[in-house]
Amino acid sequence: MDFEEKTLKRDIVFEGHIFTVAVDDVELPNNLGQAKRELIFHKGAVAVLAVTPENKIIIVKQYRKAIEKISYEIPAGKLEIGENGSEQEAASRELEEETGYSGKLEQIYEFYTAIGFCNEKIKLYLATDLVKVPNPRPQDDDEVLEIFELTLDDCLKLIETGDICDAKTIMALQYYALTFGGK
Amino acid sequence: MDFEEKTLKRDIVFEGHIFTVAVDDVELPNNLGQAKRELIFHKGAVAVLAVTPENKIIIVKQYRKAIEKISYEIPAGKLEIGENGSEQEAASRELEEETGYSGKLEQIYEFYTAIGFCNEKIKLYLATDLVKVPNPRPQDDDEVLEIFELTLDDCLKLIETGDICDAKTIMALQYYALTFGGK
Repeated sequence: MDFEEKTLKRDIVFEGHIFTVAVDDVELPNNLGQAKRELIFHKGAVAVLAVTPENKIIIVKQYRKAIEKISYEIPAGKLEIGENGSEQEAASRELEEETGYSGKLEQIYEFYTAIGFCNEKIKLYLATDLVKVPNPRPQDDDEVLEIFELTLDDCLKLIETGDICDAKTIMALQYYALTFGGK
Repeated sequence: MDFEEKTLKRDIVFEGHIFTVAVDDVELPNNLGQAKRELIFHKGAVAVLAVTPENKIIIVKQYRKAIEKISYEIPAGKLEIGENGSEQEAASRELEEETGYSGKLEQIYEFYTAIGFCNEKIKLYLATDLVKVPNPRPQDDDEVLEIFELTLDDCLKLIETGDICDAKTIMALQYYALTFGGK
């Protein structure tokens, strides 16, 4: 059984700053004929599960236009041009810009967020040994953020209320619970 | 501190079968000026963590055009028109179409997959008491799928090798490990 879909034609229908949208005509394997695939191409992103010496998890409150709601998430950000070879730098930068902390970073894993139609890949880091940076890089000028330091129990309550409803944040919290046993 | 971004203007730049793409001009809160937001609107989806009586997890092998690779995932599918009020029906349908099983479904939680630019929400279900349906609904005619029944350890190995690299699948496996302790 073959699985691969060969691209017959690609139409780029939108080129933005955050993503590009394409519609591919593909040839299905096993003589199944042709199909169309609507696709989003994204540069990728990093996210940081940042844990303070008091075992608090750093959570960022922000407005998300796509859902027109406030959301509570771990620090994260898109990769910028030239950062492809150094996601860890991007993770350090986002942590400092969003929270004012720097720390020791190690990669947890990476994953595709919406694999059915989008190639956005997020690399998730664990940050420990956090220290406040004296003069942290400023936040992006189109972001309004509020920072909280929460216990795992606080975070689990925010999942129950729907205030935490973001996949990467739930993944990071489940990882924390599995790895550190909620302690 | 205000968080909300008010929409000043919305341009719909692409209307597809799977998603719609818009560019919004927004007014930032706290007199920060204006910004643009590139957005993807999606009808939502369901996913199913299906566990056999032998404590095997059902995993679907399929090709994903967005990443041009084969991927191993839990059964999932988009909501179709008229299913908004009944995601559980959609989850039952996807389970039957993709795996030939029916079972007892209960909701685990729901989450946004790519909250920074996309409103796709996935409702995740646990399916137990699985039984083979005698004449299951056929698979979609543009899908080529292969079904596996794997232990949690098998799945964790596929995460290590990168064959499981899909956020919803990793989330479901973490949930399984946290809830059933890998037994």
